Amino acid sequence: MTGPVTDPVTDPAPGPVTGAAGRRRTGRRPGDSGARDAILAAARRAFGTGGFAGSTIRGIAREAGVDPALVHHYFGTKDRLFAAALELPLDPTTVIPGLVAQGRDGLGERLARTFLGVWDGTPGQGPMLAMLRSAVSDPTTAGSLRDFLTRVVLEPLAGAAGAHEGAALRASLAASQLVGVAMARYVVGLEPLASASIDELAPPLGAVLDRHLAG
Amino acid sequence: MTGPVTDPVTDPAPGPVTGAAGRRRTGRRPGDSGARDAILAAARRAFGTGGFAGSTIRGIAREAGVDPALVHHYFGTKDRLFAAALELPLDPTTVIPGLVAQGRDGLGERLARTFLGVWDGTPGQGPMLAMLRSAVSDPTTAGSLRDFLTRVVLEPLAGAAGAHEGAALRASLAASQLVGVAMARYVVGLEPLASASIDELAPPLGAVLDRHLAG
Repeated sequence: MTGPVTDPVTDPAPGPVTGAAGRRRTGRRPGDSGARDAILAAARRAFGTGGFAGSTIRGIAREAGVDPALVHHYFGTKDRLFAAALELPLDPTTVIPGLVAQGRDGLGERLARTFLGVWDGTPGQGPMLAMLRSAVSDPTTAGSLRDFLTRVVLEPLAGAAGAHEGAALRASLAASQLVGVAMARYVVGLEPLASASIDELAPPLGAVLDRHLAG
Repeated sequence: MTGPVTDPVTDPAPGPVTGAAGRRRTGRRPGDSGARDAILAAARRAFGTGGFAGSTIRGIAREAGVDPALVHHYFGTKDRLFAAALELPLDPTTVIPGLVAQGRDGLGERLARTFLGVWDGTPGQGPMLAMLRSAVSDPTTAGSLRDFLTRVVLEPLAGAAGAHEGAALRASLAASQLVGVAMARYVVGLEPLASASIDELAPPLGAVLDRHLAG
């Protein structure tokens, strides 16, 4: 529950200074990107050691040597900070509610296309694959992934699945299909799924996601 | 591709002797169980280092210090030896074809019940979970899992899905749903899926597996 915390007074974090120096050549405001990078680095360490539930905005701010208000300014919520730490090419805290808001008709296929698009569009599948790998070997990371999936993916999907009984179970079954596709396509390389195009996969996956969500 | 191979002439494997001595107290025929244990131990080493495709019955027999005929006598095929090395409570090389042989009606639910029954019925999920963990960190194990799933699970399921176009892709999508349920239920602990009973999970999972297989 307690990750390594740096006291900014006795042990100032070198991140912002280094980051600012690195960015200066690009012409950006040096202080901003340096602090942002330091917050992300502190967040990755905190989520990695304390898990999602065991990490706080306040603790991450302290480790990054910044005010908690700056963390809220850049990232809003802990969910969004977690998503940013995963370096996802899009923000699931806004994308999933956006997909759901378009209605239940075709929701499964939109979900499948978005999910596969994010994974296929990330060279080497980067931090998402690292998180999946880490989740199966480390219970803390598994807990972070579980909390993140529950709040960012399952709760909006359960809302879309309707308020009647079993919505949460149906949403978790839909999430299990997405996790399974990521495992089969990007980790195990199960053919022909691994080489199939998004256009081939989205309709059957979408039908099954709709079946899970609608019950 | 080449695991550590022991030459039984210059470097006799101690496995069978130790195994036989260990079993003698139980009253079993010492030679049989000792050789069987030695073959399984050699098989786990070979599959772990050389992968499924890179391992041969002949090489495993050599490392175990037995004749290849004895490996065939105990385990039949390399698929069955692999299944035995996983310590599964039942043999998927006979169970899957058995499920398929009962016809397409209700196949998805029979498959879901059998799959969940095997995982739930194995305390701590033992070697299956170890293999899943290992597959995400080690490409060789991922390759072994892929080959095993393809030959023992996907090919019979693709047969059940019919000979028409896309059967192999549909079978691999069904397999991805099973892998995803194992990940969500036993690795990540995604609720309420992780705590749901087999009776709650089998109908929705079965419907989706049927949808995948039937296209």
